[in-house]
Amino acid sequence: PCPLPPFIMTTKAAAYRDAGVDLDAGERAVALIKEAVRSTYGPEVLTGIGAFGGLFDAAALRAADDTILVASTDGVGTKTMLASQLNRFDAIGLDIVHHCVNDILAQGARPLFFLDYIAADRLDPHQIATVVKGIADACRAVGAALLGGETAEMPGVYRPAAFDLVGTVVGVVRRVDLIDGTRIQKGDALIALASNGLHTNGYSLARKVFEGWDLTAMQPELNATLADALLAPHLCYLQPVQTWREAGVDVRGLAHITGGGVPGNLPRILPKGLAARIEWGAWPIPPIFDLIARVGRVSREEMWRVFNMGVGMIAVVPPDQAETVLALVPDAYAIGRVVSSQEEKERVSIV
Amino acid sequence: PCPLPPFIMTTKAAAYRDAGVDLDAGERAVALIKEAVRSTYGPEVLTGIGAFGGLFDAAALRAADDTILVASTDGVGTKTMLASQLNRFDAIGLDIVHHCVNDILAQGARPLFFLDYIAADRLDPHQIATVVKGIADACRAVGAALLGGETAEMPGVYRPAAFDLVGTVVGVVRRVDLIDGTRIQKGDALIALASNGLHTNGYSLARKVFEGWDLTAMQPELNATLADALLAPHLCYLQPVQTWREAGVDVRGLAHITGGGVPGNLPRILPKGLAARIEWGAWPIPPIFDLIARVGRVSREEMWRVFNMGVGMIAVVPPDQAETVLALVPDAYAIGRVVSSQEEKERVSIV
Repeated sequence: PCPLPPFIMTTKAAAYRDAGVDLDAGERAVALIKEAVRSTYGPEVLTGIGAFGGLFDAAALRAADDTILVASTDGVGTKTMLASQLNRFDAIGLDIVHHCVNDILAQGARPLFFLDYIAADRLDPHQIATVVKGIADACRAVGAALLGGETAEMPGVYRPAAFDLVGTVVGVVRRVDLIDGTRIQKGDALIALASNGLHTNGYSLARKVFEGWDLTAMQPELNATLADALLAPHLCYLQPVQTWREAGVDVRGLAHITGGGVPGNLPRILPKGLAARIEWGAWPIPPIFDLIARVGRVSREEMWRVFNMGVGMIAVVPPDQAETVLALVPDAYAIGRVVSSQEEKERVSIV
Repeated sequence: PCPLPPFIMTTKAAAYRDAGVDLDAGERAVALIKEAVRSTYGPEVLTGIGAFGGLFDAAALRAADDTILVASTDGVGTKTMLASQLNRFDAIGLDIVHHCVNDILAQGARPLFFLDYIAADRLDPHQIATVVKGIADACRAVGAALLGGETAEMPGVYRPAAFDLVGTVVGVVRRVDLIDGTRIQKGDALIALASNGLHTNGYSLARKVFEGWDLTAMQPELNATLADALLAPHLCYLQPVQTWREAGVDVRGLAHITGGGVPGNLPRILPKGLAARIEWGAWPIPPIFDLIARVGRVSREEMWRVFNMGVGMIAVVPPDQAETVLALVPDAYAIGRVVSSQEEKERVSIV
């Protein structure tokens, strides 16, 4: 059954490298990121890099008698294209970690560990090391172990210089702390936690709008370059939500505003029979959205459906706690309230 | 702060769809896959599709007092290109689930839940539904809940018709059942569990070798078409390993043979001072590898480093249990033994 006995000489080896896969580059990347990854390990991480699966001691979970694991996978979308185009890979790691952490935070969970996947036409070890360092920094800041990861060279799948960045977070929440929107009532206050720009959604449209523009030129109305405005990292809302909960705020619902904008995400947590009425102008809208709308001649409805428009996360709290909530956390805004579906035809309406 | 007061009329809306993202197609895909996903839910899954994060009741973990979570992320590589080219998406879901499940099985873990990520230049709802159905079927078969997933349209990142498929599995193992290779001793037997082809590695090279070939033509030496041989789904080794463990076999190490082949993966579980001596020809090598080597004029060394060469997983067991191990499971082969590093210069040598 031996297909190639040793005595058959090959006159021309089809080296794996010729087919577009550079194993050595991958290995160099792994070496470069080892230190950053290890910096995220707490005592509950039981293996180092190179194991087939990452091991996470569940002892901490056993302490609570009502533990629920919460998991989410997501990508950063075509924000990777901008990072490549501008050769700036320092913040894209924060983007993916914060995106995923916010997703499980929406159900009240704190992150335990994170896994990343980076794929490209060709792996540039230094570029990958920069991305993973950003991921590791973000993981450390939110208390998550960077438990695993994969880098893949996929010639023919990705366009030249393009890459994808995918993250998976696993977190934990006690059953009594679970936030699922079921206790949301008519009259509850809608509190926005401000975003600083597009976060990780709407980049296909934004890139089209600014096609041909010099992204590194200062834009007076942004008081920044387009590069800086568009690559502003996805904010993480773990801290403000923790502050609220520690102060005893009854956070009844949390909606992470990603693809689909407020009208696509807020209804996901609203119980049947309830709707949201939002006051346009009750929060500051980052100027980048104004510029996109004007340059691209994008309607407000389309903007509202594609972008977060300055609202990174919406918390639903009892109306009598709204003032406390706003006082406890900077960059929070009361933007509307929960109403009965009889009062509004749309699940999310703007007044 | 309102960027676009309602009275400003836009003469031409830069519809999101124009920028290459079809939100409706994404929504249709989600609807099509809902049923398949729900079929994987046991009572421990606490939310349906649409939640920000998937919820998994950790009650089952609390029963054991020494629980370790094991997690792994991986992709199927450029096997996606072949699936696209041949318009066959039925088995690629099995590939990613089995790949990930084997990775955590290598540490003795059984899967709890799985999350998938599918990204493409453009989303075809029916294609995605087929892929996710395959994922769901595989999850159900291995007892994992398909807890979450993401589909992303990324125009400009992926080449036309190309897609990437990424999976993350989270599993569990009791500390006493953890397999980490530390107990491997000189003299231990190396048992191969047979693969049925490339599994999910080496496709960039294989695609290059067969460039221009008619993949749907019968190849007599394969007794199959290249399409069938190359798309044969990644086998899952959960069942044979469980059979061994239930029979009391002391499985001291498990190496999942993926990218890097046997020489790249077996050393990952060998303690320092030990090496592996493998008898070439002790197991059947699927004919597809012979064909790749001959057509592509690929050296045996290169083949051995890139492909699994018929060895899907290697189990390390005490020599006196080797016969039992072989008798309990079909398609298992004694392929060599563990030796001292003093006897062998290479960590994995072929005799």
